[in-house]
Amino acid sequence: MAGNSIGTLFQLTTFGESHGEALGGIIEGCPSGVVIDFDFIKKELKRRKPGQSKIVTQRKEADEVEFYSGIFEGKTTGTPIGFVVKNTNQKSKDYDHIKDVYRPSHADFTYDEKYGERDYRGGGRSSARETVCRVVAGAIAKLFLTDIKITAYTSGVGEIQLTKKDPIDFNEIENNIVRCPNANLASKMESLITSVKKEGDSLGGIISCVIENVPTGLGEPVFDKLHANLGKAMLSINAVKGFEYGSGFEGSKMRGSEHNDAFTSSKKTTTNYSGGIQGGISNGMPIYFNVAFKPVATLIQKQTTINNKGETVEMQGKGRHDPCVVPRAVPIVEAMAALVLADFILLQRRFNS
Amino acid sequence: MAGNSIGTLFQLTTFGESHGEALGGIIEGCPSGVVIDFDFIKKELKRRKPGQSKIVTQRKEADEVEFYSGIFEGKTTGTPIGFVVKNTNQKSKDYDHIKDVYRPSHADFTYDEKYGERDYRGGGRSSARETVCRVVAGAIAKLFLTDIKITAYTSGVGEIQLTKKDPIDFNEIENNIVRCPNANLASKMESLITSVKKEGDSLGGIISCVIENVPTGLGEPVFDKLHANLGKAMLSINAVKGFEYGSGFEGSKMRGSEHNDAFTSSKKTTTNYSGGIQGGISNGMPIYFNVAFKPVATLIQKQTTINNKGETVEMQGKGRHDPCVVPRAVPIVEAMAALVLADFILLQRRFNS
Amino acid sequence: MAGNSIGTLFQLTTFGESHGEALGGIIEGCPSGVVIDFDFIKKELKRRKPGQSKIVTQRKEADEVEFYSGIFEGKTTGTPIGFVVKNTNQKSKDYDHIKDVYRPSHADFTYDEKYGERDYRGGGRSSARETVCRVVAGAIAKLFLTDIKITAYTSGVGEIQLTKKDPIDFNEIENNIVRCPNANLASKMESLITSVKKEGDSLGGIISCVIENVPTGLGEPVFDKLHANLGKAMLSINAVKGFEYGSGFEGSKMRGSEHNDAFTSSKKTTTNYSGGIQGGISNGMPIYFNVAFKPVATLIQKQTTINNKGETVEMQGKGRHDPCVVPRAVPIVEAMAALVLADFILLQRRFNS
Amino acid sequence: MAGNSIGTLFQLTTFGESHGEALGGIIEGCPSGVVIDFDFIKKELKRRKPGQSKIVTQRKEADEVEFYSGIFEGKTTGTPIGFVVKNTNQKSKDYDHIKDVYRPSHADFTYDEKYGERDYRGGGRSSARETVCRVVAGAIAKLFLTDIKITAYTSGVGEIQLTKKDPIDFNEIENNIVRCPNANLASKMESLITSVKKEGDSLGGIISCVIENVPTGLGEPVFDKLHANLGKAMLSINAVKGFEYGSGFEGSKMRGSEHNDAFTSSKKTTTNYSGGIQGGISNGMPIYFNVAFKPVATLIQKQTTINNKGETVEMQGKGRHDPCVVPRAVPIVEAMAALVLADFILLQRRFNS
Repeated sequence: MAGNSIGTLFQLTTFGESHGEALGGIIEGCPSGVVIDFDFIKKELKRRKPGQSKIVTQRKEADEVEFYSGIFEGKTTGTPIGFVVKNTNQKSKDYDHIKDVYRPSHADFTYDEKYGERDYRGGGRSSARETVCRVVAGAIAKLFLTDIKITAYTSGVGEIQLTKKDPIDFNEIENNIVRCPNANLASKMESLITSVKKEGDSLGGIISCVIENVPTGLGEPVFDKLHANLGKAMLSINAVKGFEYGSGFEGSKMRGSEHNDAFTSSKKTTTNYSGGIQGGISNGMPIYFNVAFKPVATLIQKQTTINNKGETVEMQGKGRHDPCVVPRAVPIVEAMAALVLADFILLQRRFNS
Repeated sequence: MAGNSIGTLFQLTTFGESHGEALGGIIEGCPSGVVIDFDFIKKELKRRKPGQSKIVTQRKEADEVEFYSGIFEGKTTGTPIGFVVKNTNQKSKDYDHIKDVYRPSHADFTYDEKYGERDYRGGGRSSARETVCRVVAGAIAKLFLTDIKITAYTSGVGEIQLTKKDPIDFNEIENNIVRCPNANLASKMESLITSVKKEGDSLGGIISCVIENVPTGLGEPVFDKLHANLGKAMLSINAVKGFEYGSGFEGSKMRGSEHNDAFTSSKKTTTNYSGGIQGGISNGMPIYFNVAFKPVATLIQKQTTINNKGETVEMQGKGRHDPCVVPRAVPIVEAMAALVLADFILLQRRFNS
Repeated sequence: MAGNSIGTLFQLTTFGESHGEALGGIIEGCPSGVVIDFDFIKKELKRRKPGQSKIVTQRKEADEVEFYSGIFEGKTTGTPIGFVVKNTNQKSKDYDHIKDVYRPSHADFTYDEKYGERDYRGGGRSSARETVCRVVAGAIAKLFLTDIKITAYTSGVGEIQLTKKDPIDFNEIENNIVRCPNANLASKMESLITSVKKEGDSLGGIISCVIENVPTGLGEPVFDKLHANLGKAMLSINAVKGFEYGSGFEGSKMRGSEHNDAFTSSKKTTTNYSGGIQGGISNGMPIYFNVAFKPVATLIQKQTTINNKGETVEMQGKGRHDPCVVPRAVPIVEAMAALVLADFILLQRRFNS
Repeated sequence: MAGNSIGTLFQLTTFGESHGEALGGIIEGCPSGVVIDFDFIKKELKRRKPGQSKIVTQRKEADEVEFYSGIFEGKTTGTPIGFVVKNTNQKSKDYDHIKDVYRPSHADFTYDEKYGERDYRGGGRSSARETVCRVVAGAIAKLFLTDIKITAYTSGVGEIQLTKKDPIDFNEIENNIVRCPNANLASKMESLITSVKKEGDSLGGIISCVIENVPTGLGEPVFDKLHANLGKAMLSINAVKGFEYGSGFEGSKMRGSEHNDAFTSSKKTTTNYSGGIQGGISNGMPIYFNVAFKPVATLIQKQTTINNKGETVEMQGKGRHDPCVVPRAVPIVEAMAALVLADFILLQRRFNS
């Protein structure tokens, strides 16, 4: 209830700071009997891992997850799954120089205002390192959601944006380090990130996600609509500034006669501006949405800012940082989508007598 | 927990269908001693009311709220506030012809898939008539939030969009029936709605919102970030397809060096691409965000669709409908923002010893 | 979250004060398709109703419930069920004399300490009149729990206690006005209540409850154990001071060799000291428990007490009050049991794929 | 939401099985700035630890807690506190013989019915080993509740019960291994446990608890009454069968004129049958309650039972078990009381502007 849990029946609660002893979490409500493929979990973690390519942060983290409960003889037991990811490469010293400094567009100032106390090392709790727990839990949610296919990909890096006329191939996504389903654009995005990194500057971008084979009936109106909870889950990811599903912001410019999705006799629709959701409930068509990420706040440039006394100070990002978070955030978007869907599936089962 | 509540400490739970006896709700957790200005609540309801102008639905509803508890001698007592809004103008007969029909881009099909049973009259629970309860609760939240100023307005109707170069004046908003802070654009939007209405077609649009005088420290990372809960609240409003705050989707194209908000010595920032929120917590700068609405699904045109047996049928919207929901949704956006802020203020008080 | 809701998936939220306009509630999560027998609900309300016999309060209340939503053509639709019970016989004037007085062992003082503001008429929110909403919701839960049989009865009034050697007959319960399943004891209890009433004094008592035909697997360890949530539900009823299930307090004096319930080959047990619950989960045997009620705090005698300035004052109960709440609390105990079971049944369904 | 969390704002979520890798939990919502006395936490754990005396289980567990987050430079930061207690002395082999056996009055059968899968080693999740997490969290809650004094003690072991005429001295509690505040009775209880242990049998008992210096205003009627949540917390402890507060079950035999607590001019009461709680809210007088524990189900005797095929089998408890859980449950009762109070204190702060 205090901000570190997500989900009602399939629920993740997390703990952990960027440079503390460890991060971890508790997955509650995963039904019993789910076969746990530990290699799959490792693979998911590897997609998010620092140091995976030349365009991401070079922090070296093992990112090995230890499971402490809830799994017995390779299957879930229905009891809570406790897990821990130890921090192994904390260069806390890197952060002594910013102990009292409020970095621009970071959460240093707001955490101080909220809590009074703060673990300043590497952003502490506000660091995106926290998302490692989301990927662990999301991987387990995916193992539960055997029939549903969730595919996220990079559709924008800075000004380079995938448009409707660019062909996409989901098989291409993991073939390039930006995770774009169009090899040509992927290569342009990679070049852009490389060049912006050299300048010590940073980039934002957009991740798109498609969810296929969703059963009908998921979502809990009027407040926990499927897209409302999806949107919240995405907005809770570090650096996210926007969420749109189906026709999204562009849809607001259309006429109803154009936007309405006509039903076919097989209870599918000919178009899918609804994005697979009507009245907050899945209609069986693919769900798709976009998530906007702001450019990374840490720059390898000198910046003027203030310290906690309000005095003007100069600072320069050291540490090891991503010039663009989007490539590593792709598995995080998928993980959050999996958690939301798993929760709605369990909620909907209350109507199965 | 089952979708009809929002908020943790300042919580609204609602009930009611479009053409049932009544709608209503329970507001839990409003602190005691809040002076209830019943005229203000009426005024807020009037801004949402059907029939308020020629460009909205002509359904005639008194929209009178009756309070049954939690208010004593003009002040809240801290106990739950129960309220009811009776339906007075239910023309249920209008809906007999769509009893078994799945209207395109409505929730008829998905409600049937989810629940099996459905009050088909006027959309039942999926109707935006439910938002009358949100406006009642939002008005009470506003009375609690005496120092915070929440201003929503229409910034887009179809292809007509307010841009950065158009001057805006908040005093203008209630002077025109589309609720646009620029009189010139307001008049264009009004014309567009009128002409599209004549064609029996419908429009979408965008509502923008600015929240001023927000205390620092509001928001509960890592999942209940201020913008994540705001986003969810907005996405839970009928017809909403997207949410962005601060620099939003456009921000994803910027460089970090351009996007970072520099601090001044007074702990304010020179720019505000962060939209008043850093790390999910308010920083004291104005919060601002945009909400995208799809075009209304009900058309006064013939449409081909299916019935609940999957048979193709022809249907035509009768009933009384808005050609564009945006003008009436302005107070709803404000209400949801007020509810989210009230909740975060109470949550933050747990740290006040 | 703020004290006026119970249940996770089958959830009741209530509002209302003793002498306000109305009381009511919202039942969320009741599955669709439950046939609503309105006569049954009336009958349940009648069992709790004031004025039903000479040994209960003579306040005259119609106690008619109006349903506003969630029921369509006689069946639930799965959407929230809003309901209201109007107060028709508020003699608020009766309470002017205690406006500033803290009645002994009432909640006047504590409500003032907690909220600062208080509707003093008839105890306001702290009045047991609030339980009318519990009986409405419990009746609907019972209609959902078609196979489960919940039977509560009076097993103690003051010093008169049903013992193991007294024969009991559930058919007898509604044949006498104290609701005791032994006619002989019932008549002694009735006499005791009548005589204590004449003295202007009051009595406590005990209600026992048996739940038969419970499916196995209900309960959510480790915190939401079946008996833990049952206990909480009972302790939330006005005037309750204790809860025990199965062997209860007496069981604490037994040896393990005597207390252990041996399994039979049909997965039943020969004894049932466990009270149908092992490890917080139902085992299919009958659940049984006892609930202790304190003597009513309102006396028709002069009492010395203090007012809100801490000054000593004399007061005398006027109003209309029960000399013993136990007979009218029998349906309330059943209602709370029904709500808890309905919730656990829905929770358990999350494991039914 | 699925049974492994307790509390709304000060919330504990736990994981872990008796013979898994580790147990642990997440404490959410502990305010920042609480100074963590690690020696105090160790001391609390020692009071619960197996092997602490000759009358408790001889399982050897280090019971060392590792904190992974939420504490920085010796103080809480307001972010979630993740902690782990490794299992070091799992003799899982001890349990191979009961893999398919349903031990009488244990949770083997019910866990199988509920979840289908089960970690059978040492009771798995249903083992009281889980309470180690409660003691860790309770210790932190106590460090937060600096002004409130919580004292639990053994008041009954089998048929030996502390009565009102037995003098008690809280300083005596930790001087004897049963934790009884009367040395004479303590010695009798110890003898009883020793002799029953020799017979391979087991005992139940009663723990009483007194909470002093409680602020007024704690508790959230009508469902989350202070005693309702206390009762639930106690009933959630392994082996608990009953809870009563204030005058309890005995109070149900009293007359109102005798039971009412008269106010003094200092807003205290002359008697305290209310147990410090009126209308579900603390009134500033000491809170006191009793908790009944059943005799331990594991006997070192031969017992006939069934296996998961319903076949009759003979079994004999091996493993290492307590003949009576009451002495070790004293710190657990205190821990749960501390968690409940900490939560209500944070909830009440929402009314402090």
